[in-house]
Amino acid sequence: MTPYERLTDRFTRIATIGEATAVLHWDASAMMPAGGAAARGDQLAVLAGVEHAMLTDAGVGDDLVAAEHAPPDGEWDAVNLKLMRHAYSRATALPPDLVEAQARANAACEQVWREARAQSDFAAVSPYLAEVVCLSRQAADALAAELKLSPYDALMDGFQRGITAADVEPVFDRYERWMRDALPRAEEREAQRGPAVRLDGVFPADRQEGLCRHLSARAGLEPSHFRLDRSAHPFCGGTPTDVRITTRYNERDPAQALMGVLHETGHALYERGLPDAFARQPVGQAAGMAAHESQSLIMEMQACRSDPFLRWLGPTLHGTFGGEAAQFDPDNLCRLWRRVERGFIRVDADEMTYPAHVILRFRLERALIAGDLVVADLPGAWRDGLQGLLGIVPPDDARGCLQDIHWYDGLFGYFPSYTLGAMGAAQLMSAARREVEGLDADIGRGDLLGLLQWLRAKVHGQGNRLGFNDLLAFATGSRLDPSFFEAHLTARYLGEH
Amino acid sequence: MTPYERLTDRFTRIATIGEATAVLHWDASAMMPAGGAAARGDQLAVLAGVEHAMLTDAGVGDDLVAAEHAPPDGEWDAVNLKLMRHAYSRATALPPDLVEAQARANAACEQVWREARAQSDFAAVSPYLAEVVCLSRQAADALAAELKLSPYDALMDGFQRGITAADVEPVFDRYERWMRDALPRAEEREAQRGPAVRLDGVFPADRQEGLCRHLSARAGLEPSHFRLDRSAHPFCGGTPTDVRITTRYNERDPAQALMGVLHETGHALYERGLPDAFARQPVGQAAGMAAHESQSLIMEMQACRSDPFLRWLGPTLHGTFGGEAAQFDPDNLCRLWRRVERGFIRVDADEMTYPAHVILRFRLERALIAGDLVVADLPGAWRDGLQGLLGIVPPDDARGCLQDIHWYDGLFGYFPSYTLGAMGAAQLMSAARREVEGLDADIGRGDLLGLLQWLRAKVHGQGNRLGFNDLLAFATGSRLDPSFFEAHLTARYLGEH
Repeated sequence: MTPYERLTDRFTRIATIGEATAVLHWDASAMMPAGGAAARGDQLAVLAGVEHAMLTDAGVGDDLVAAEHAPPDGEWDAVNLKLMRHAYSRATALPPDLVEAQARANAACEQVWREARAQSDFAAVSPYLAEVVCLSRQAADALAAELKLSPYDALMDGFQRGITAADVEPVFDRYERWMRDALPRAEEREAQRGPAVRLDGVFPADRQEGLCRHLSARAGLEPSHFRLDRSAHPFCGGTPTDVRITTRYNERDPAQALMGVLHETGHALYERGLPDAFARQPVGQAAGMAAHESQSLIMEMQACRSDPFLRWLGPTLHGTFGGEAAQFDPDNLCRLWRRVERGFIRVDADEMTYPAHVILRFRLERALIAGDLVVADLPGAWRDGLQGLLGIVPPDDARGCLQDIHWYDGLFGYFPSYTLGAMGAAQLMSAARREVEGLDADIGRGDLLGLLQWLRAKVHGQGNRLGFNDLLAFATGSRLDPSFFEAHLTARYLGEH
Repeated sequence: MTPYERLTDRFTRIATIGEATAVLHWDASAMMPAGGAAARGDQLAVLAGVEHAMLTDAGVGDDLVAAEHAPPDGEWDAVNLKLMRHAYSRATALPPDLVEAQARANAACEQVWREARAQSDFAAVSPYLAEVVCLSRQAADALAAELKLSPYDALMDGFQRGITAADVEPVFDRYERWMRDALPRAEEREAQRGPAVRLDGVFPADRQEGLCRHLSARAGLEPSHFRLDRSAHPFCGGTPTDVRITTRYNERDPAQALMGVLHETGHALYERGLPDAFARQPVGQAAGMAAHESQSLIMEMQACRSDPFLRWLGPTLHGTFGGEAAQFDPDNLCRLWRRVERGFIRVDADEMTYPAHVILRFRLERALIAGDLVVADLPGAWRDGLQGLLGIVPPDDARGCLQDIHWYDGLFGYFPSYTLGAMGAAQLMSAARREVEGLDADIGRGDLLGLLQWLRAKVHGQGNRLGFNDLLAFATGSRLDPSFFEAHLTARYLGEH
């Protein structure tokens, strides 16, 4: 075996442990009785330790040096070797003591946060968050030194390689300017349009679930390779040949589950479409979190909240649930499910204001990691920031800086992915529309397979060969260009083309 | 840290990996979509490799030698150290090449067996089974040399330490003699009793499931620490704080699910009751498969198929399912659910003939491992053996030597556990009846908690401190004594006390 072949073997084993971990995580959210939580924590910690030990084994370092002296032929393997080095560098950059201290501090903080959020009591969690931030800064510094990046960029790199704050900042600033102009106009247009017919009656969860399965299948997800279950916080987990989607059902409003499952179906299809030839290799994985979010949002926001799809979905909903036909009129569904509204909660936000929530978090977390903002000042900075962006002030911290788990779990540098993904989705959809004949007509028949075929070729099948920007360039002809997202929002919410 | 403390740390990690494996096994049977099977096989293989590497690490051997020079104080820790040595000896006795060859051969054979059983085509699987037997003999020889046991005893030791074929043979021979006399008398008595009222109607699976949950809870299983799901082959898996029971529902006959779940509940309660202080240590585990089976059978056969319990269950069934009251009359339930009948299939057998199926397999597998029986002659030896024991000849190999997965999966030495467990259950029940005041009256109110309390003290809480025979002596005052099982069957099936 060559050193590179030995490395592919090792990374296969590492990824296989990661798959076991993914199933255990899914189980913990969707299946596990409460009494299993402590043991599950131990199981995940031991597996994480095994995975880390495999990745940081001295043999990996030796084989990397040897393989780099005689790199493998072919672009995919060459990139794979670079990604192996990158994973090894990230894993070895952090002292084991720091990794352990972070695991402990993050777990403690997350636990306190759950109660603090419920009570809207930032003071209760503030010392825990301060510890988490302190350790995250140490980790960022260690990674920065190894990767030759700024500390915050080194954290972002963990979720989306090749994207830095310098890439994100002008994109976000531009969006903020655009939104300041567009948002009042969208609101005015909504006010003129008059109120929607409210959904009336009960939408039984089992019938919602049946329809969710039907929609996932129409989108191209094979029943032999996925499960749909329930959990408090919907997500897509599992492994590429066995994806696990979860959702929750609101019996007064099916949009939450239907659009939620379509969103997770976008994630799932990405995993299903990754290149088999490089399964369990770094180059065979998804190209980071922004790319992943682009796939969930192209499915949910671009395809399934579009006029043609809602025109198809309306009668389908009426056939499934019965009741007043007027409520399922496609125009009415647009008013209900594509409503622009300034709100406090990110996960409830519409397409146009969602980026404002992300921009706020991006600015605040950069400042926290840079040491320009201390944890004690976070609630005030949050209120000021949201007022500046959306002109509203949250009435309490539960609806302010306590709403998201990310920071309390030690995740810094993740938030930008959501908006980069939304922008990427618009850009990809525009290219798909150019290249796939009759795409909107297909979508208007509830047929999403033409879109899937294009995404398989342009995105899914490319694995992690390219970073986010190069992937967009490969698929659409240009690197990230926010004008596509602006054009999409303009057409959808301002009625201009 | 002392060497012994290091060992307890290592064994904790090993057991934690084993817990992850247990959840993945459960998931594969109860949840996983078919498309995930190949990846799951890889995940389990990698975890098995990690576990084996941890157990056979040279550091374990060094620490064992050091700890044995200065053994820990206290009986539990002293036994724990012995069991660590035992596990290490078993794991290191087998050359890694042989372990790998067995894993491959067993997996290949099991796969061919599924089709061969469906087609009743022994010839198709026979060469695969020959390979499995050949490798199992090699493994038995290697273990025998290390453990100073005969080859077959070395295999039995893997399921039930301290029990040898020389212990089992006289017990089984005695049972065979007893049964030759008792079985015709039981059949005659049944014939005189006249036919039962057949169950009539449909027993909806969801209502059966509700009742199963209710019965498990009455038996003492806490809902926060277990799940009940469906699978093709019912089992009890998971971990001590998170047990996973599966069953299947026959809508024409609720006995399969109800008694099946009570059986698995017995297993589950054993896991739940293991001593916390030695969780994840060898001495904190269950005391082998015979002990485990004694716990499922004391719950199902001793407690829940008893007259008092069926008197309570009859009205409960009527209340749950409605329909004709006569079918749920306790006397009728006895006729339906406690019927002695010579049959070909082990898993469908009644209490009295079940041991005959086990005795047959015990004799054949001993001969296979000793080399006294070749695989080609197995079907004939099976037919002859069953005819000798029960006077019936299976019409095909599907109902003969192809019916059980065990051998085709490389499991030799396991079968005796079923009957040792049945005998142990009768012996334990007799002791419980002596020691727990009003036990049968409690059971007659559907209250199984008095029995559980006694089992917790006498069996569950003892972990693996004692081998099967010493555990019985601790709990009942005598080592395994088959007369209790005979007395139980005599009272139940011959109407004599």
